[in-house]
Amino acid sequence: MLSTSITPRVSETDGAGHVNNAFVPVWFEAGRREIFRILTPSLAFAEWRVAMVSMRVDYTRQIFFHAEVEIRTWIERIGNKSFTVYEEAWQEGALCAKGTATYVYFDYRAQRAEALPEAERRALAAHLRER
Amino acid sequence: MLSTSITPRVSETDGAGHVNNAFVPVWFEAGRREIFRILTPSLAFAEWRVAMVSMRVDYTRQIFFHAEVEIRTWIERIGNKSFTVYEEAWQEGALCAKGTATYVYFDYRAQRAEALPEAERRALAAHLRER
Amino acid sequence: MLSTSITPRVSETDGAGHVNNAFVPVWFEAGRREIFRILTPSLAFAEWRVAMVSMRVDYTRQIFFHAEVEIRTWIERIGNKSFTVYEEAWQEGALCAKGTATYVYFDYRAQRAEALPEAERRALAAHLRER
Amino acid sequence: MLSTSITPRVSETDGAGHVNNAFVPVWFEAGRREIFRILTPSLAFAEWRVAMVSMRVDYTRQIFFHAEVEIRTWIERIGNKSFTVYEEAWQEGALCAKGTATYVYFDYRAQRAEALPEAERRALAAHLRER
Repeated sequence: MLSTSITPRVSETDGAGHVNNAFVPVWFEAGRREIFRILTPSLAFAEWRVAMVSMRVDYTRQIFFHAEVEIRTWIERIGNKSFTVYEEAWQEGALCAKGTATYVYFDYRAQRAEALPEAERRALAAHLRER
Repeated sequence: MLSTSITPRVSETDGAGHVNNAFVPVWFEAGRREIFRILTPSLAFAEWRVAMVSMRVDYTRQIFFHAEVEIRTWIERIGNKSFTVYEEAWQEGALCAKGTATYVYFDYRAQRAEALPEAERRALAAHLRER
Repeated sequence: MLSTSITPRVSETDGAGHVNNAFVPVWFEAGRREIFRILTPSLAFAEWRVAMVSMRVDYTRQIFFHAEVEIRTWIERIGNKSFTVYEEAWQEGALCAKGTATYVYFDYRAQRAEALPEAERRALAAHLRER
Repeated sequence: MLSTSITPRVSETDGAGHVNNAFVPVWFEAGRREIFRILTPSLAFAEWRVAMVSMRVDYTRQIFFHAEVEIRTWIERIGNKSFTVYEEAWQEGALCAKGTATYVYFDYRAQRAEALPEAERRALAAHLRER
């Protein structure tokens, strides 16, 4: 499991008084930094290798400005050309949101998905969620 | 169907050269403005009545900076205390993303979901998607 | 003068109940789209020609969610390698924010500022603010 | 001096390949969290006490996705009803941006600025930048 600490920002709250739901996908993306590094070790966009296919978030509890949030990130599934990340957002001991994101391993120059190389598959597998 | 025109912003693109996936939920939320107005006619946050339960987005095509995007918004389902919005993002004649968002009708003071009043249900129903 | 209409988004408000100050620079950048198009007619990032040098915003009135905002954009100064944009944000007949942004005409491959070509200078000059 | 570590997010980069200039004000606001806490110890928006008057940012170097950024935050000036924060963004040993933000001590219910109480002035003064 990868753990990322997020300090909520004023600009991420909304008029309803809590963190706006649209920032949870932003935080979940922040939680995937080491996953991105597996596929693009330089983190350089000229060598970027992932493209998002789908995303799902379930909101179970409001998130507030005053306390730290922990994003927990696992790999849930590794397919031939794609993989799915599972993530949770925790604040003050409570699960506030959980979700998945599916990416394809993408060649931006050729504009097509490609099979995940074996070394990358193994590196992703090290973060597989046990159930 | 509600239609909202979005002009992509430089700040909404990312290093991979297209609109970042995290801004599609932001645009879809922008597309729900008239839905929010049905439930909170003043659009004042002190009277805000919706809380997001879940969101799903499928990305079918990259979205680019240079052209307008149309967000199309329908009501997909009206439950007792909740409802689901279905949305699509179109750019240059192509469907680029589609997704759903489910909200509960929420009393922020009492911190609990409530049944959707009949007048609001009828107003939402005017935007139901025919299938 | 260029005029850009902005519909505030829920995600752009903050817990203090108004539009968060950090989104005014985002809206002002949105107002510069036709300025960017003068320098990069394709709006393609591979041919992007501006880099920001400085930005200043004065906030004169709170901006709220419920009403449209008009961004007014002028060119204030055209130098040899740089130019300054002056912008205002208006809501319900009141000036809410004003600011300037200075850009250099930049060659991202060579990583250096260059003199603004004559044709681009003339096109920018068409938007000069008269005082 | 207050120090805040920022890990750049994909969604904060733009098509030009670096961190978009509009996110520097967002990061600088993140750097002011402990300043906000002095004026609103609970960090609750119902008791929020600051309103932004003006902001200025000078961009001296591009900021990239791959490396951490340190935001350094000082108080530059304490007036009767207002105060000014001075901030810098550093990446890989280089100063990339610097700026100021001026806030008034604000009563949102009465909608007017008020004199900074003595205790708050002393707490702010502990972060004064020596020059």
